[in-house]
Amino acid sequence: MHPLTKDAAKPAPESAGPMAEALSEARAAAERGEVPVGAVIVERATGAIIAAASNRVVELKDPTAHAELLAIRDACRAKGSERLAGCDLHVTLEPCAMCAQAIAFARIDRVYFGASDPKGGGVEHGARIFAQATCHHRPEVYGGLSEQASADLLRAFFAARRPDTSTEPGDGA
Amino acid sequence: MHPLTKDAAKPAPESAGPMAEALSEARAAAERGEVPVGAVIVERATGAIIAAASNRVVELKDPTAHAELLAIRDACRAKGSERLAGCDLHVTLEPCAMCAQAIAFARIDRVYFGASDPKGGGVEHGARIFAQATCHHRPEVYGGLSEQASADLLRAFFAARRPDTSTEPGDGA
Repeated sequence: MHPLTKDAAKPAPESAGPMAEALSEARAAAERGEVPVGAVIVERATGAIIAAASNRVVELKDPTAHAELLAIRDACRAKGSERLAGCDLHVTLEPCAMCAQAIAFARIDRVYFGASDPKGGGVEHGARIFAQATCHHRPEVYGGLSEQASADLLRAFFAARRPDTSTEPGDGA
Repeated sequence: MHPLTKDAAKPAPESAGPMAEALSEARAAAERGEVPVGAVIVERATGAIIAAASNRVVELKDPTAHAELLAIRDACRAKGSERLAGCDLHVTLEPCAMCAQAIAFARIDRVYFGASDPKGGGVEHGARIFAQATCHHRPEVYGGLSEQASADLLRAFFAARRPDTSTEPGDGA
């Protein structure tokens, strides 16, 4: 059943609305000079977005202020619980290992992500957190949703800032 | 040079004071009903403890509120930077993958930890974050410091709460 990657069947249709919101969050991050990554958390029973966040590493001077971590903390506050069972996360970039482990701790049901991140990702790349034998909770994972739009945002951001170097997201996202 | 594990030479002597503080934080967590893990961050040039924290997952209803993450966020606030180069982290339990990745993002120089965590650790076990080819920053790692005291605290905590089950820390730490 998991991980379902972008090679599996089709993107789950219920991602379109939340992913558009996540992209909107990512664009707002870029305008603030942050690596453009956005995330929203949806309570599946109601379809309500209970948290929406984007990267604030620079603004908060906090290396843990990734979109996913901020959204998880907001959603937990909204639910009054450190567990988010019944909730899905939609994020524009493949989560890093820190965020993937936080997703597992929070017991999030499904992860929908946009662009793959070969350099910084921790789901399909690097530490592959959900594939570890010691991972207590493995969400269903759907990758490659709105991939082009998500990747274009990142490319444009890095191209404008570091014209002579890589256009990959690296570790600031 | 790294990772230096508990098998290497001797515990670095400069850990004794900070680790005693981390243990004190861990004991305070146990008294609040939290999995007893404590962490402190030391600025090496001055020897000053710039952050001290313990697990507050239950209190804050936040699955990311591990001792290390809270200490990193506090230390970054204290330094006014999302980077903690020149700083060392002392923690009573092997960091999980989430905290290990945050340690790498924060550019912490050295990690001193107490008890190993075969079930939940992400440094010597599981995702082995610092050993990943995609890890941008690898701190020096010294394990097994005050290991007995750190492990005893965890065992006593779990024995009192779950007398019929495992005494291992699991994912609440």
